[in-house]
Amino acid sequence: MLSVKELGINAKKASRALLTAKKEKNDALKNIADALVKNSEAIIKANDIDIKNGKENGLTDAMLDRLRLNVERIEGIANGVREIIAMPDPVGKVLSGNTLSNGLEITKVTVPLGVIGIIFESRPNVTADAAALCLKAGNCVILRGGKEAINSNKAIVEIMREAIFEAGLPKDCINLIEDTTRQSSIELMGLTDYLDVLIPRGGAGLIRAVVENAKVPVIETGVGNCHAYVDESADIEMAKEIIFNAKTSRVSVCNALETMLINEKIADKALPAIYDALKEKNVEIRGCEKTRAILPQCKEVSVEDYATEFLDYILAVKVVKDIDEAIEHISKYSSGHSEVIITENYKNAEKFLNEIDSSAVYVNASTRFTDGGQFGLGAEIGISTQKLHARGPMGLENLVSTKFIIRGDGHVRV
Amino acid sequence: MLSVKELGINAKKASRALLTAKKEKNDALKNIADALVKNSEAIIKANDIDIKNGKENGLTDAMLDRLRLNVERIEGIANGVREIIAMPDPVGKVLSGNTLSNGLEITKVTVPLGVIGIIFESRPNVTADAAALCLKAGNCVILRGGKEAINSNKAIVEIMREAIFEAGLPKDCINLIEDTTRQSSIELMGLTDYLDVLIPRGGAGLIRAVVENAKVPVIETGVGNCHAYVDESADIEMAKEIIFNAKTSRVSVCNALETMLINEKIADKALPAIYDALKEKNVEIRGCEKTRAILPQCKEVSVEDYATEFLDYILAVKVVKDIDEAIEHISKYSSGHSEVIITENYKNAEKFLNEIDSSAVYVNASTRFTDGGQFGLGAEIGISTQKLHARGPMGLENLVSTKFIIRGDGHVRV
Repeated sequence: MLSVKELGINAKKASRALLTAKKEKNDALKNIADALVKNSEAIIKANDIDIKNGKENGLTDAMLDRLRLNVERIEGIANGVREIIAMPDPVGKVLSGNTLSNGLEITKVTVPLGVIGIIFESRPNVTADAAALCLKAGNCVILRGGKEAINSNKAIVEIMREAIFEAGLPKDCINLIEDTTRQSSIELMGLTDYLDVLIPRGGAGLIRAVVENAKVPVIETGVGNCHAYVDESADIEMAKEIIFNAKTSRVSVCNALETMLINEKIADKALPAIYDALKEKNVEIRGCEKTRAILPQCKEVSVEDYATEFLDYILAVKVVKDIDEAIEHISKYSSGHSEVIITENYKNAEKFLNEIDSSAVYVNASTRFTDGGQFGLGAEIGISTQKLHARGPMGLENLVSTKFIIRGDGHVRV
Repeated sequence: MLSVKELGINAKKASRALLTAKKEKNDALKNIADALVKNSEAIIKANDIDIKNGKENGLTDAMLDRLRLNVERIEGIANGVREIIAMPDPVGKVLSGNTLSNGLEITKVTVPLGVIGIIFESRPNVTADAAALCLKAGNCVILRGGKEAINSNKAIVEIMREAIFEAGLPKDCINLIEDTTRQSSIELMGLTDYLDVLIPRGGAGLIRAVVENAKVPVIETGVGNCHAYVDESADIEMAKEIIFNAKTSRVSVCNALETMLINEKIADKALPAIYDALKEKNVEIRGCEKTRAILPQCKEVSVEDYATEFLDYILAVKVVKDIDEAIEHISKYSSGHSEVIITENYKNAEKFLNEIDSSAVYVNASTRFTDGGQFGLGAEIGISTQKLHARGPMGLENLVSTKFIIRGDGHVRV
């Protein structure tokens, strides 16, 4: 078993071959897709061990379901890789250029980031997905998955390494940390000489641990304490549908709604209608005092609730005086993921769009659209909630860096 | 004296006013420039205390010179601020946009980063310069300068805070950490709730300390172990002039040359010519064995020399077999700042441009051009040597983030 540092050295070395790779990258992706399907049986066999261990270790049915691979799911993973083949190569794009008055020709071009670390939890489909996206953008990847999926991950990575080697790329473009102790995560977070960026994919606890401990550059992803503000002028029917969709269409995801703010001038009429809709899905409403005056059956909301990403059938509700109080609340509690205003008022729509500082700000649409695929950006590696480098859904075009190329003819600086 | 955390809270609050500021920003910059000139006397008086303390604490003449302010230098700082007024506002630029098949209108626009921390050493001109650039891009700034310049910095920041207040912006858009102990730096590096990015400006020691300790996102700047490779086909006269310029025109800066690699087929003829030119400026050559066979008077180079940013009249020299050995050496030792090939061979020029992974890669020009002003990007906040967010000279356009704006009409995700 190679140490994290050894994997770093190998990846950095392999990354040089990817700097100039073009056709080989798509060849490698095609090989990966084919090899995953061809070796389904071996993958499922390895996955069976993970499932067996998971049952023994008391994983919930939901967790076991996320962990489980079958022929159909492996086919799905392979198809995901094939979609990446069809996407344009993000490397080698000329972003800008100029010939200076002294004759120096300067161009700014996209280049691979280099070596990307991904720390993720138990879903083994992330393994192939993340490796394929990184590869397409010319990056080597070091994967550190959860211990629950280690046998599946080992099988998938071994198949991918063989597949890319047959396409003429070094196996070390794709690396798996087989040690799933806490120590290996810590080592990966400190690998400043070899890692260009670390992307954690998982729950709030994982993200926080990485942000606290990493010495390498990190892109924070995926924590979504999302808000809706129902303005005085909102179409109540529209508000009801958007809130219902944002809260209940999939509660466990980062773009799901967690808090609704509602203007006091419309609360009397709108709150009962929204409540009735949410009742269908047994959503628990936790309301402020004014909410409870209208809906006495609600639980009382706490300050902690406002700060919580429930990922559950729970919605915090606060009646606000005006849009300013709504913006104030969101600025205080939001994780900067996605927020929406529901309004028919042009000025308030523009005010909300300008003054809310989140990765995706909506007027009259569900926050559930915040997603690379939905935005037409293609497969995503995560949704950045930080402001550096990439913000919002991150696709291939965010997995590159740039460099300046300068062509001269004996130019010296005077 | 406010704590670092209090400054963070104040800055984050003030940053909301800057989200939508347009004309006020230039008004504030004009006020800053005027106020600095008008209050030159007070600034110089404060600076005199720093100079007196510096002398007592044994600062070198060079350090005292960097610290010293006079009427002319303050005029220069004010003119720097006025140049920023003339530059285009980087905020509110629409980068891309699309109407999806479901009718959702998505645009990606530039927004301020939020709150930027700058840790720098003793030059008080950085204080006004960095604050003005941050302000123009809609960001609040928290400045942590060196203790040598604390009195100058306090005077400059107080004047700037008054000046922006008169333009209708909160004073807390510009903040100075008055505590110059190590503890205040550590606190700033951990200010995850309030700081969007931290930019260290200074020597390798400072940069390393920040990278090692920061929990907030960091942009690494300014360490330049720059290389030149003199190819077999190089024009020797051109090589001599570029090497001379890159090494000697200003030895203390990050874009100065530190190591020269030279093809063995041209070394016999080129090395003596280059040596003679560098002798004029008493440059010490530290050579490999083959270099010393040609120039026996040279000192022996060490592995540490190859890894060192001398910032002095010293040049490490290595004779290499071919361009591949040169690229290999650079990949191993470079800090990723600036590298140049001197060649008349088209294939080798392209190979070098493609395979060298640095922020600026040159053919036949001095590395000394790596600079925001020289590249036509305007004033720079630093030269990034990392690959995330910004790489190479960073101007106003790198001091912003983006957000997605989505306009719908009751859209829900199915």
